[in-house]
Amino acid sequence: MKIANRMNTLTSGANDGWDVFYRARKMKRSGLPVTELTIGEHDIGTHKSILTEMDRSAKAGNTGYASVPGTDELRQTVAQRIKKKTGVPTTAANILITPGGQAALFAAHLSVLDPGDVALYFDPYYATYPGTLRSVGAVDRPINCYPENNFQPLKSDIELAAKGAKCLLVNSPNNPTGVVYDIETWKGIAEVCIEQDLWLISDEVYDGQIWKGKHITPRSLSDMAQRTLVIGSMSKSHAMTRSRVGWVCGPEMVITHLINLATHTTYGVPGYIQNAANFALNRGDELEMEVAAPFARRRKLATKLVAGQNMVKAIPCSGAMYMMLDIRKTGLSGETFANRLLDKKYIAVMPGESFGQSAKGHIRVAMTVGDREFKTAIEELLDFASKQ
Amino acid sequence: MKIANRMNTLTSGANDGWDVFYRARKMKRSGLPVTELTIGEHDIGTHKSILTEMDRSAKAGNTGYASVPGTDELRQTVAQRIKKKTGVPTTAANILITPGGQAALFAAHLSVLDPGDVALYFDPYYATYPGTLRSVGAVDRPINCYPENNFQPLKSDIELAAKGAKCLLVNSPNNPTGVVYDIETWKGIAEVCIEQDLWLISDEVYDGQIWKGKHITPRSLSDMAQRTLVIGSMSKSHAMTRSRVGWVCGPEMVITHLINLATHTTYGVPGYIQNAANFALNRGDELEMEVAAPFARRRKLATKLVAGQNMVKAIPCSGAMYMMLDIRKTGLSGETFANRLLDKKYIAVMPGESFGQSAKGHIRVAMTVGDREFKTAIEELLDFASKQ
Repeated sequence: MKIANRMNTLTSGANDGWDVFYRARKMKRSGLPVTELTIGEHDIGTHKSILTEMDRSAKAGNTGYASVPGTDELRQTVAQRIKKKTGVPTTAANILITPGGQAALFAAHLSVLDPGDVALYFDPYYATYPGTLRSVGAVDRPINCYPENNFQPLKSDIELAAKGAKCLLVNSPNNPTGVVYDIETWKGIAEVCIEQDLWLISDEVYDGQIWKGKHITPRSLSDMAQRTLVIGSMSKSHAMTRSRVGWVCGPEMVITHLINLATHTTYGVPGYIQNAANFALNRGDELEMEVAAPFARRRKLATKLVAGQNMVKAIPCSGAMYMMLDIRKTGLSGETFANRLLDKKYIAVMPGESFGQSAKGHIRVAMTVGDREFKTAIEELLDFASKQ
Repeated sequence: MKIANRMNTLTSGANDGWDVFYRARKMKRSGLPVTELTIGEHDIGTHKSILTEMDRSAKAGNTGYASVPGTDELRQTVAQRIKKKTGVPTTAANILITPGGQAALFAAHLSVLDPGDVALYFDPYYATYPGTLRSVGAVDRPINCYPENNFQPLKSDIELAAKGAKCLLVNSPNNPTGVVYDIETWKGIAEVCIEQDLWLISDEVYDGQIWKGKHITPRSLSDMAQRTLVIGSMSKSHAMTRSRVGWVCGPEMVITHLINLATHTTYGVPGYIQNAANFALNRGDELEMEVAAPFARRRKLATKLVAGQNMVKAIPCSGAMYMMLDIRKTGLSGETFANRLLDKKYIAVMPGESFGQSAKGHIRVAMTVGDREFKTAIEELLDFASKQ
């Protein structure tokens, strides 16, 4: 009687740099005035109108089993949104509604990976990526990205890693770097996927948070729609993190299989939450812009402050709610920097080391507190850096 | 570029007897007055007070990420409920909150089965069982139960199948049979689990719907708590099917691993739903009895009607919201009976064949329509049977 092997290999067990996050939470709970710039949690809540719609839907009797693939309405609305944003023909048959973006990521990988298959992803990465690949029994193989290239992956590196692999996981706009992949990067990715016959899993949960340039979905590139599974979510775009509603968008054949899988893994998503999500999406760009606006403001603010000194360098932030700062000039590791900053200034940021090997000597700043508090925190952070 | 093997083997692809269900839905949508006695969906909705609590919680700002293992409050409440009902020492550390009972079933199997491991279950079975075992890459091995034994499994049969297996999935009160396992059955199960070193996964989502006898959890049997994972859910006990909230209860070591797994598969359950579930559980037995009462009444009603004739024999219904009827005297298969009943009388029931091989020549009646409609349907069903 022993547990499955996968359970022991999900996470590396090594110190992964998240200590500072837990320490910050503990300090805050103990009453210390900690400014948390750690995780991707909006400082605003879900819009009241969305919650009101949810209540209306629930009390109207939508409390029985919902259809496993998702409600017809939400699947259609999501398909229309994707079609409008990307130009790629998309119908409800291309959409599976999932209980959140993480469940969508997991399902997508479960649908293409057999045990022992090699799954690629870029380092630095969102914290759950390696464990998600391992949880389906795959061998996770990171591809390093470099600060010198603003953390955009190089085609030559992808090619080198892709031999014998089954799929590649990408994320643009990127967490943790705030980078939006340009067309050259996407072309390189697409070419390797086609040459090496890879599935591409494209995590696009930040697709509405673009500060510079343009969001490109790989589904829009030649011959890519048939091999691409896009992950979407209401969490970031509509501040609905706790509502756990997301989707996979992909070829109808894969979605049909994924619906069958969902019958066995989750059995659908609460109907009243789907109705609320549908309502939110139908409110259109206006509401999404309202949710995104604070990050746009704070990015501008931080970019300006960083430009006024020389110790800390910013990776140009083009999207998402994070800023990656290069603190190598201080001579400190990201982890030491983050820990000292927390102890001395009560400001919590994530060490680059929390997101793999490639972002060593960096820190990630989540732009998730009010503008005034955010400005003060960045000023203090830069002042702190200058004194190391 | 091909999909994972597991996707092609999730379901058998054979006609599994669910045609009649889909046909009934279609007929109903087209306006025909079909009485649906097919799936386990309450004819009442979720209690308004639970939905009001959910709305209160959401609007109070509980819309950010919830803690992945579940809220402290709900984990504690569930632990207390289990301890009170079963006498087995249980704390919050033994509980993982999941997005529904199906997600709990999937997670439990994912945590104990490696690809290729043999997983046991009893036939007749709840429809998702075989696919759930296959979705984690296991080899599913059914153990037949017999109407002559009221579908309680025999120790000798379990022993025969258990060689080389890794786990056993049980469900009492049972869907589809309405049978509640007695202490002799449980002792046999426990002995084989200990002898063959099996994990026991005990689906107890109907634990509050007992019409005769007593619910026994295998966690309460000697040396069994350490190897038992219990699946629970709010769906059946509180008519919260669409809210997708359930749990796994097990040894702290396994739960710790399952929390890590949940970070990669679901990332938690909406906080306002957990608060609503906590509220519902804290309302105690009274609310649960209110939800269960209609099934108790209808079971009595149907039992009496069946006793008044000789063509159809009832498997004694001791729990849950279903009744299994033996229609072999009619000379028809369950499937033919169900299809003809639907066409002639507009009454939809599930053929025994939908739940495996062992319930051939039976039909399952879900007691999920109002008493008057239910009584008429059973009378018509018995009349129909007498004329075959």
